[in-house]
Amino acid sequence: MSAVKVGLLGFGTIGTGVVRNFQRNSTIMEKRLGHGLELAKIADLDMTTDRGVQLEPGVLTTDVEAVISNPEIDIVIELIGGYEPAKSFILKAIANGKHIVTANKALMAIHGQEIVEAANRQGVSVMFEAAVGGGIPIISAIKENLCSNQFSSVLGILNGTCNFILTKMTEEGSDFAPVLQEAQDLGYAEADPTFDIEGVDTAHKIALLSALCFGTTVDFEQVYVEGISKITAVDIQFAEQMGYKIKLLAIGKNHGEQIEARVHPTMIPKSYQLAEVSGVFNAVRLMGDFVGPILLYGSGAGMDATASAVMGDVMAISRDYVSGARSRAPIMGYCADQINTLPIKAMSEIVSHYYLRFTTIDQPGVLAEIAGCLGKYDISIQSMIQPEGQEGGSIPIVLMTHAAKEANISSALKEIGQLDIISQPTCLIRVEPQLD
Amino acid sequence: MSAVKVGLLGFGTIGTGVVRNFQRNSTIMEKRLGHGLELAKIADLDMTTDRGVQLEPGVLTTDVEAVISNPEIDIVIELIGGYEPAKSFILKAIANGKHIVTANKALMAIHGQEIVEAANRQGVSVMFEAAVGGGIPIISAIKENLCSNQFSSVLGILNGTCNFILTKMTEEGSDFAPVLQEAQDLGYAEADPTFDIEGVDTAHKIALLSALCFGTTVDFEQVYVEGISKITAVDIQFAEQMGYKIKLLAIGKNHGEQIEARVHPTMIPKSYQLAEVSGVFNAVRLMGDFVGPILLYGSGAGMDATASAVMGDVMAISRDYVSGARSRAPIMGYCADQINTLPIKAMSEIVSHYYLRFTTIDQPGVLAEIAGCLGKYDISIQSMIQPEGQEGGSIPIVLMTHAAKEANISSALKEIGQLDIISQPTCLIRVEPQLD
Repeated sequence: MSAVKVGLLGFGTIGTGVVRNFQRNSTIMEKRLGHGLELAKIADLDMTTDRGVQLEPGVLTTDVEAVISNPEIDIVIELIGGYEPAKSFILKAIANGKHIVTANKALMAIHGQEIVEAANRQGVSVMFEAAVGGGIPIISAIKENLCSNQFSSVLGILNGTCNFILTKMTEEGSDFAPVLQEAQDLGYAEADPTFDIEGVDTAHKIALLSALCFGTTVDFEQVYVEGISKITAVDIQFAEQMGYKIKLLAIGKNHGEQIEARVHPTMIPKSYQLAEVSGVFNAVRLMGDFVGPILLYGSGAGMDATASAVMGDVMAISRDYVSGARSRAPIMGYCADQINTLPIKAMSEIVSHYYLRFTTIDQPGVLAEIAGCLGKYDISIQSMIQPEGQEGGSIPIVLMTHAAKEANISSALKEIGQLDIISQPTCLIRVEPQLD
Repeated sequence: MSAVKVGLLGFGTIGTGVVRNFQRNSTIMEKRLGHGLELAKIADLDMTTDRGVQLEPGVLTTDVEAVISNPEIDIVIELIGGYEPAKSFILKAIANGKHIVTANKALMAIHGQEIVEAANRQGVSVMFEAAVGGGIPIISAIKENLCSNQFSSVLGILNGTCNFILTKMTEEGSDFAPVLQEAQDLGYAEADPTFDIEGVDTAHKIALLSALCFGTTVDFEQVYVEGISKITAVDIQFAEQMGYKIKLLAIGKNHGEQIEARVHPTMIPKSYQLAEVSGVFNAVRLMGDFVGPILLYGSGAGMDATASAVMGDVMAISRDYVSGARSRAPIMGYCADQINTLPIKAMSEIVSHYYLRFTTIDQPGVLAEIAGCLGKYDISIQSMIQPEGQEGGSIPIVLMTHAAKEANISSALKEIGQLDIISQPTCLIRVEPQLD
């Protein structure tokens, strides 16, 4: 049979990776598929940059219609990123009966429902493996192989920039700002790194994973997001002393009537596999009621790893298309009419362990005053570090609590913050001391 | 639409897990599939044992024909294990147009080709995710999501019994025999543990993974298999001192014109993720040319984790069936007419690093004699440990070599074995000091 024709929107870094994958592995892909794949058209406004790959004349165009309205093209890959014009192009391609593969986590997390509904009306597929965890086959694992499970939790290290920075800070004892600069110099962080370091990118990803795992829509506005820019070398060292590492952890939990979906710096025991995920690598840990814990690890970003995920989706759709499958698997893992709208638990209601670093004046009785206030709010202390003070200066008091309700912690910290003994704002880092 | 009907052959431990999964998660499975699944018949000779699950009257039968020749049943799950009668039942079910899901690694590794050919003639699917790595979605990752990659290697810790024993020996400094006994008492090892501890089970699994990754038939007779029964506490301690752990590692490598497929105790650096895989857990590490390294980790055995993999396959076939897909994905990852018959590299030709523990008489010049002999065969030494001797007794000399050809090592060890200074047979353990 003739080749299935694919069009590409966006010829940037990942787009170039996709072209490289098409070119280098076309033979092996055909041996696995039983039919050819042809990258027929690439639309990008930039016709001049040398991406280090050769294209046949006429493949690259500035005309997006040559992809999304091309009757020869069956599958459209969207690698433009951002909301617009990516969304409009995808919706028009869907309206034209094209199947969609995208790496666009922001778009899928915020406007996914509109896109999925359009696709369902047209009976086309939308796949987005590359949107979460780079090359790690996490979305397909949730949607297909592990789909006889009820998932109780999904935890992830999902942003290579943040993990690179935290790993470097841990290894070198450095503070945030110089390591961010280094990450930018190395190309691991954008010139404007806000989306990454403030946790927004990770939050987009946990919104998608929670939706897929728990069978619910996820209102992104309700996802709690806290980035890593306030993490200090001091906290990393105390964490180390207590047997923990600090990671930007994405947390999704299923409580039946509601879910948790939150992103914040989190202390996890050093002995856990997630604590060992270093540098720009990503990992996702799922807990299913039958399969138990599953950890998937790999490159979370980069031209080639992301291209692998994109091409895996292209090949899956191509198999469906050629084998005659119609609506083989629902886009969000559950049939559209079976998707819940579970609320996300308010942060004040969550239960966690907490690392609290108080900065106090150096005088006797300080700990008693803090502990008394915590006790008033039902917060009990699991361990404490109080380094020897320097005369006349401020000293840190570091506490690890047992499980406590976030609302109680907030109230206690507010009250403690008003005490005369407190000389600087208190640092709070949530702790996941044991995985279910 | 009406439910897709499934039949089960073998109502043992895993079969019971499958029944539990059907019963507990039927609602969620239907929400994901858009149609129901019904476990219509279970055939087992044992009608009396209480498996702790309730069945509708008439579901359990001793009559295998009620499953494999039942016109209402579309998918047959084979969980009998072993070669016969499992193979005959599967072939008959295929002849009757049933799709097959099996957890039978021995059967698929030895008679897979015959089964695949029969299935291809009939146009039915055979899926066997549960045959390798328990609940870990490794086979589907290779066949589907990562299928735009050329794989250069696949490494695995694939036998929970062996990994439990080696982990215990490492943690407790114990020797092999008492830990095997403990594993048997805990139900982690069979009464006759030969298949597990001598590496045969692991070899079946690496034969399947190598075939799937590299697109070749694998002649199981050519797979090198060495188990863990000769590993001693002493070697585990020396490995520890040198920064390594000993694992029963399954190794598949692709050299283009030939492959490696071997199973033997292997030293890997403690800092590697595979070294951290403890107890009955399994893990597989793939290296793809685009995705880079991928590690998948989870429960390698057990009723529920294995049931998860079985049910993932059942649901995949059910999706294909209901969506009208014909021959969606080839059974062994490559189209039948595209599968190579690559030879497996002879062990004498492989290149590895080696841990060698010589037991020598305690006299000066012993190391020089050994080193001289190794040098003669182009084997250079990377590091050495020679503990202080006890007067008059034997002493160990432990060497770690640089990369060397196995044939040279064999020749050198043969020659060294004939020296008067050698008082006991030399212990050899292969080393994977760096992953590609």
